[in-house]
Amino acid sequence: MKWIGVVDTMFARVDMGAIALAALRVKPDFGVRFDISRRTVPGIEDLAVAAKRMIQLDGCEIVLALGMVGAAELDRASAKQADTGIMMAQLMTSVPILGVMVHEVESQGDEARLLAICEARCSSHALNAHDMLFDPASLVARAGQGVRQGAADAGPIAATPWKTDANVTI
Amino acid sequence: MKWIGVVDTMFARVDMGAIALAALRVKPDFGVRFDISRRTVPGIEDLAVAAKRMIQLDGCEIVLALGMVGAAELDRASAKQADTGIMMAQLMTSVPILGVMVHEVESQGDEARLLAICEARCSSHALNAHDMLFDPASLVARAGQGVRQGAADAGPIAATPWKTDANVTI
Amino acid sequence: MKWIGVVDTMFARVDMGAIALAALRVKPDFGVRFDISRRTVPGIEDLAVAAKRMIQLDGCEIVLALGMVGAAELDRASAKQADTGIMMAQLMTSVPILGVMVHEVESQGDEARLLAICEARCSSHALNAHDMLFDPASLVARAGQGVRQGAADAGPIAATPWKTDANVTI
Amino acid sequence: MKWIGVVDTMFARVDMGAIALAALRVKPDFGVRFDISRRTVPGIEDLAVAAKRMIQLDGCEIVLALGMVGAAELDRASAKQADTGIMMAQLMTSVPILGVMVHEVESQGDEARLLAICEARCSSHALNAHDMLFDPASLVARAGQGVRQGAADAGPIAATPWKTDANVTI
Amino acid sequence: MKWIGVVDTMFARVDMGAIALAALRVKPDFGVRFDISRRTVPGIEDLAVAAKRMIQLDGCEIVLALGMVGAAELDRASAKQADTGIMMAQLMTSVPILGVMVHEVESQGDEARLLAICEARCSSHALNAHDMLFDPASLVARAGQGVRQGAADAGPIAATPWKTDANVTI
Repeated sequence: MKWIGVVDTMFARVDMGAIALAALRVKPDFGVRFDISRRTVPGIEDLAVAAKRMIQLDGCEIVLALGMVGAAELDRASAKQADTGIMMAQLMTSVPILGVMVHEVESQGDEARLLAICEARCSSHALNAHDMLFDPASLVARAGQGVRQGAADAGPIAATPWKTDANVTI
Repeated sequence: MKWIGVVDTMFARVDMGAIALAALRVKPDFGVRFDISRRTVPGIEDLAVAAKRMIQLDGCEIVLALGMVGAAELDRASAKQADTGIMMAQLMTSVPILGVMVHEVESQGDEARLLAICEARCSSHALNAHDMLFDPASLVARAGQGVRQGAADAGPIAATPWKTDANVTI
Repeated sequence: MKWIGVVDTMFARVDMGAIALAALRVKPDFGVRFDISRRTVPGIEDLAVAAKRMIQLDGCEIVLALGMVGAAELDRASAKQADTGIMMAQLMTSVPILGVMVHEVESQGDEARLLAICEARCSSHALNAHDMLFDPASLVARAGQGVRQGAADAGPIAATPWKTDANVTI
Repeated sequence: MKWIGVVDTMFARVDMGAIALAALRVKPDFGVRFDISRRTVPGIEDLAVAAKRMIQLDGCEIVLALGMVGAAELDRASAKQADTGIMMAQLMTSVPILGVMVHEVESQGDEARLLAICEARCSSHALNAHDMLFDPASLVARAGQGVRQGAADAGPIAATPWKTDANVTI
Repeated sequence: MKWIGVVDTMFARVDMGAIALAALRVKPDFGVRFDISRRTVPGIEDLAVAAKRMIQLDGCEIVLALGMVGAAELDRASAKQADTGIMMAQLMTSVPILGVMVHEVESQGDEARLLAICEARCSSHALNAHDMLFDPASLVARAGQGVRQGAADAGPIAATPWKTDANVTI
């Protein structure tokens, strides 16, 4: 059994962790090949150490760190610290932590839009985490495809001669 | 007995550590399940190593690092360094340190307001630290609820179908 | 057999990893002195830990970390985090990781130009990686020559009396 | 015997290390309870590793890292790097390093004022270092008192009910 | 025999490594007390790991990391990353690395001036490195003297009563 960690915040205005859990629980191998560990912390700057503890103490092999970033100047500085911490926690453990931040400014004040972005981004990153654990070759097949989470895909700019299945070497 | 660390600064214009201590000492399990270790350092850039020492030398399992940030450009740069240090100290020890900064600009020059923000933020983070040690499930129950410290809560943006007690897996 | 790692992203709009692979596979010593390991991750902030894993788990002695940076403000902040992570991953492992970022703003909205920059920069850095592994003296010979990747070389500003073969001490 | 380290720069226009030494040498316990180790480096970005070496190789239990920051844009970027390095050196060794920077812009072009700031800040931080080693409770007693170094103290904003001697728990 | 490392870039438009080597080779103790190890990397962000390898694998006791910074916005971001990496490499190894950056903007488009700055800065830092290894007391004697590299010295602002030979304690 592999464990996927999910950690989110009390600060966020959407239960982002629950969205990720919902996306993972419908997977046919939930409870078979993987299980989920969940934590919540006060704010985004508390995510990194919580994720590191889930890796070290709970044995998670990948973690989703979910947070919402307020619109104020101080909030953006917090987001930067949170991202730096998530980066360092990954490198210290050599375990991937997908930092999933939804910025309030992305919704332009529209709460329904904010919720929709949270739903799309948290669930698609939850599926990415699953693929990274169980099907890494599927990510190589999507290399350079302009894939976005929580927004329309940008798509590849051109069919290129280099795109062949033979590129995959895992 | 678990130890909660509290470290603050001489630079601050409010005795932030005393506020945190007051909030923790009225807890019925003070002196029973937990005790408090306190230090003071010159300024906010000295908080991180002090917190790390309280974890490593005093055995604290969580630390509150409390500081006030002046309004000048140089003060904001110091705050960034202080935050970076607190982040790294957490990751190096795998122990949470709640960095609690009150920015003078938040009070718009009103000293009574500055004091009120300090009181609200320091005491609510002191209670968060207690919950993180002794009742982590209570934080999961507040995931995505728009909880703020030292300001009115923003609240959740909508009741979402994902919010169920069954989400809690600790 | 030495391994060269190549990691790129689903976010990019060009299959940058495939370009690097194409440049390396035509080398006469491909499959003889070196082989290639390839991974793909969701976005640029995921490159660093992936590169570190390729070094630690796959035994790569150099890694190409390839990413495309969007034009938005948030994308540039991501690029900074990605670069910081790649720097730290190198220092933690003492193994070089060539971070190769193509910024959408470099192409001024021209997709053909964006593709051309990707081709030039990814392939020339792939050759740099090969030289760093197998012919480090060839880099010393090019010291101070104003060499650019993915743009015209700037060239040296002047023939200087210090430029002698005798400078090479490896 | 405890050792206090003092490291400063050739770049500074005031012999900041000498000021710190003068403040420490008049202490009655100089040569009895503590001695001083001194180094000088080219510029502020060289302070951090020098301080770390003084901790690791010379056995210093606290270090004063003293530097002057020029007025140019590039100088401010250097100051940021210097501060980051001093922060990391502290966390890596778990030993406090008081980073004492005097910015030329603080003096508004008045050399006498620049000298006065250097004298006040270096000597008061030297005394702080001494107190941190030998009398940490005296810092707790000054918590939240708006203490400044190299400028007039801001003072506390109000007598608060939390300020009691009973707060000190060391 | 002590080793001094010199690492520079192909990106630079001046052979900065050769300048440093020329300055060191005329020292009477070259080949007697010290020898030089030289490497070249593609760009400034590759300097840090190369310097760390020269310390760890080649046994260098001090390293000169020499780079030129272009005038574009992206170049300045690279310089910041390069500096951060050089700082971390020093702290991880506890060995000094003198980061010597020449910014194209310093020359205001005048190539002769750019060359002159490179010559002055690289050679004077090479001599600093030599002094740091073999004559550290000579740096203490220059503390607070406003010494600059690659520009006219600013000089000390005033003769101060603290400046005495007795300050030197190494």
